[in-house]
Amino acid sequence: MRLVIVGGVAAGTKAASRARRLDPEMEVTVYQEEPEPSISECGLPYFLSGVVGERERLIARNPEQFAEKDIEVLVRHRVESIDAASKTLSVLDLKTGEAFYDTYDRLVVATGAQAILPPIPGAELEGVFGLRFLTDSDRIKSYVEKYSPKRAAIVGGGYIGLEVAENLCRLGIEVSLIEGQDRVALAYGPEVSEKVEAELGAHEVGVYTGEKVDEFTGEDHVRGVKFGGTELPTDLVIFGVGIRPNVELAAKAGVEIGSTGAILVDKHMKTSVPDVWAAGDCVQTTNLTSGRPIWIPLGDTANQMGRVAGTNAATGEETLEFPGTLGTGIFKVFDLGVGKTGLSEEEAADAGFEAVSASLSTYDRAAYYPGAQKVFLKLIADRATGRLLGAEAAGSSADKLIDICATALWGKLSYPDLVNIDLAYSPPYGPALSPVIQAATILSGKFDHAREGIRAFE
Amino acid sequence: MRLVIVGGVAAGTKAASRARRLDPEMEVTVYQEEPEPSISECGLPYFLSGVVGERERLIARNPEQFAEKDIEVLVRHRVESIDAASKTLSVLDLKTGEAFYDTYDRLVVATGAQAILPPIPGAELEGVFGLRFLTDSDRIKSYVEKYSPKRAAIVGGGYIGLEVAENLCRLGIEVSLIEGQDRVALAYGPEVSEKVEAELGAHEVGVYTGEKVDEFTGEDHVRGVKFGGTELPTDLVIFGVGIRPNVELAAKAGVEIGSTGAILVDKHMKTSVPDVWAAGDCVQTTNLTSGRPIWIPLGDTANQMGRVAGTNAATGEETLEFPGTLGTGIFKVFDLGVGKTGLSEEEAADAGFEAVSASLSTYDRAAYYPGAQKVFLKLIADRATGRLLGAEAAGSSADKLIDICATALWGKLSYPDLVNIDLAYSPPYGPALSPVIQAATILSGKFDHAREGIRAFE
Repeated sequence: MRLVIVGGVAAGTKAASRARRLDPEMEVTVYQEEPEPSISECGLPYFLSGVVGERERLIARNPEQFAEKDIEVLVRHRVESIDAASKTLSVLDLKTGEAFYDTYDRLVVATGAQAILPPIPGAELEGVFGLRFLTDSDRIKSYVEKYSPKRAAIVGGGYIGLEVAENLCRLGIEVSLIEGQDRVALAYGPEVSEKVEAELGAHEVGVYTGEKVDEFTGEDHVRGVKFGGTELPTDLVIFGVGIRPNVELAAKAGVEIGSTGAILVDKHMKTSVPDVWAAGDCVQTTNLTSGRPIWIPLGDTANQMGRVAGTNAATGEETLEFPGTLGTGIFKVFDLGVGKTGLSEEEAADAGFEAVSASLSTYDRAAYYPGAQKVFLKLIADRATGRLLGAEAAGSSADKLIDICATALWGKLSYPDLVNIDLAYSPPYGPALSPVIQAATILSGKFDHAREGIRAFE
Repeated sequence: MRLVIVGGVAAGTKAASRARRLDPEMEVTVYQEEPEPSISECGLPYFLSGVVGERERLIARNPEQFAEKDIEVLVRHRVESIDAASKTLSVLDLKTGEAFYDTYDRLVVATGAQAILPPIPGAELEGVFGLRFLTDSDRIKSYVEKYSPKRAAIVGGGYIGLEVAENLCRLGIEVSLIEGQDRVALAYGPEVSEKVEAELGAHEVGVYTGEKVDEFTGEDHVRGVKFGGTELPTDLVIFGVGIRPNVELAAKAGVEIGSTGAILVDKHMKTSVPDVWAAGDCVQTTNLTSGRPIWIPLGDTANQMGRVAGTNAATGEETLEFPGTLGTGIFKVFDLGVGKTGLSEEEAADAGFEAVSASLSTYDRAAYYPGAQKVFLKLIADRATGRLLGAEAAGSSADKLIDICATALWGKLSYPDLVNIDLAYSPPYGPALSPVIQAATILSGKFDHAREGIRAFE
């Protein structure tokens, strides 16, 4: 039995490892276009600045280490087409230019996603980069070393743009961030966007919201970015906007694509084509709160999906299920942790919920304990049922608060459950009542307790 | 309508505030024996060492501040008896020695708990202290200032003893800790006890386990502690063992006492006597995992119970419920955070479960991210159903991991739920898969997936 996996980052290598463990007899081959497999793409912004110094630390396992586990990882190999009828792949060895055919009994598609460079005039100039692969980081790093840019413009105020902003500042570069919408961190409510913009301002990042980039200027190298009638001098541009799933290979093989533009899979990570599974940043999953299809390319989710796809591809059965996602995420921008789980108020409204929210700013530990810092927390609940729909946090311990709320969403808890929940308290670790409990208590004041469907024990 | 509350720490003052808010017309009086109300007792170890410098910071609100909210708080007043038939209280003003009667329409008993000083010969010597009230801290602090003790012995290796050990070390005192059982932190499994003992050792605290104190020696002041045939010189002794609920007042008034020795209440915090509610460290509640009665005196739980008791005492109805507790707790000892929720393996066995456990030591953030530190996590699940029964953690981010697991317990999640749970990942905040997910995945390997009752999506 031969298992072929197309793509060797998080989902692909996880699927390979899992299949190997479950079936020691199976042949397992991974094709990977980039020169290294199992890269932590989430670590790239920190590699740019040298916060993560050693390049090798970002590579979980190299091909030799996979070989020791009897997994063949072929890097610099591009799968050019899949013929599902004959179970044949056409592969190009990018090092030698040689093309060859391979066959599979079972296939896992883990082709990931790629950065989109928007069609802005001048985007082809030297010094304009996307950031997706370790090789992108390499290119940016050597550009920075060679030309010592004084000013950088980041296009896009999502989490990648924000992480890159912090890390370029660490290099002593003067950073501007340009966002087309009227605020950064759009996946969050406006309170969080405000805090993020304040944090950027406090670290002297120029923030330009509601601005579409018209053009990059320069001869060979980028020297300026034009928007809103002005031109900002810049020596370096990094796109933090837009990635899209790599689905062409699968689509051409007859694999059905979902409404989000990513590959459609069932709960067992099976595609519409027999003996083909898919996982990671190239697939669509379900937002468990809204019940709607979602495409959410994140490393941890890719890992979990890879485990399910690899297991089922190894057994050939519906052994494991991947239920879907909450859209939980977190990022750090300078000293501010910012996270969310579930739906924002806007997303809740879009999904047809009447949302009720409560928010507060409180301390991350007992107010009298040294080092106590503020944290903002917002809870969003469904007016009709009281069920928690989402949470957003910004500040110290945001990661903890979001993980509590994500677990609450996973357990389909309602705000009354969170008023009496028994969390861990000691002065160095929290206020006597967790910010989650405090916010749920405020939320409880916004509900009519007599209303049917709200449990009594609020 | 007159509401009287006996006891003014966490539960009592919370009940008073809640009643005031719900019913502006109600008369609300709190009797408090100690000289200050609404003390953070959990902060006392940190006040001893000066980590918390200002005494006032430990007092959430003084009587004048309560008066502004139209809540009468009478400190240095002891309620000596309750006559439930006539709804009359006999009260002693400890400042004037004057006794008087008061009446109530509704009563909340929040008499808390007290430290037990075991009947060890020499326990009456100067320099031997319990630590329960702010006034105890005051006495210990002035003893330390006056006599500059060089050596201290702490009796009891539970969380109070451990917190005191750390804080006395900060004062430059040489600390020994004596525990009667064969390990410290008995509420935890042996792996955690080992880590705590190692942390104590690393900070040069002498740890003597399996040792019962026979005698304290000295003339007026304590000079030594005898156990196991040896005598350890000491200038200061603090008991970190044993507290018991203050139930005598309620018991004499005919209030039923539960099997744990604490006051029996229903989910509405009502006692067996009409118009009498009780809350806080003096009451018994339910361990939601074992379903058994439990007495667990903790500040956060007292606060939550006080809210329910105050609400129901204000409305006179069964407005809110307090469902019970998980026994979640956390403490800090030097640089080690140690927390648990639910049942330990031993407690699970006692409660009739066949427990399956999995544990691991991993990093609190991406291994390549600067400052990554180790954390130990153990998950305990029910063999028959797969349901999570408990968790223990020690190390960096223990507070976060325990709160995730507490929320999972609150939502009655099983280990398969935790394998695919969508938690927040970014390199500064966690490894790609949370330690909770990693431990649940290890746990999944110990279950027979075909067994009924285990959900398929593991």
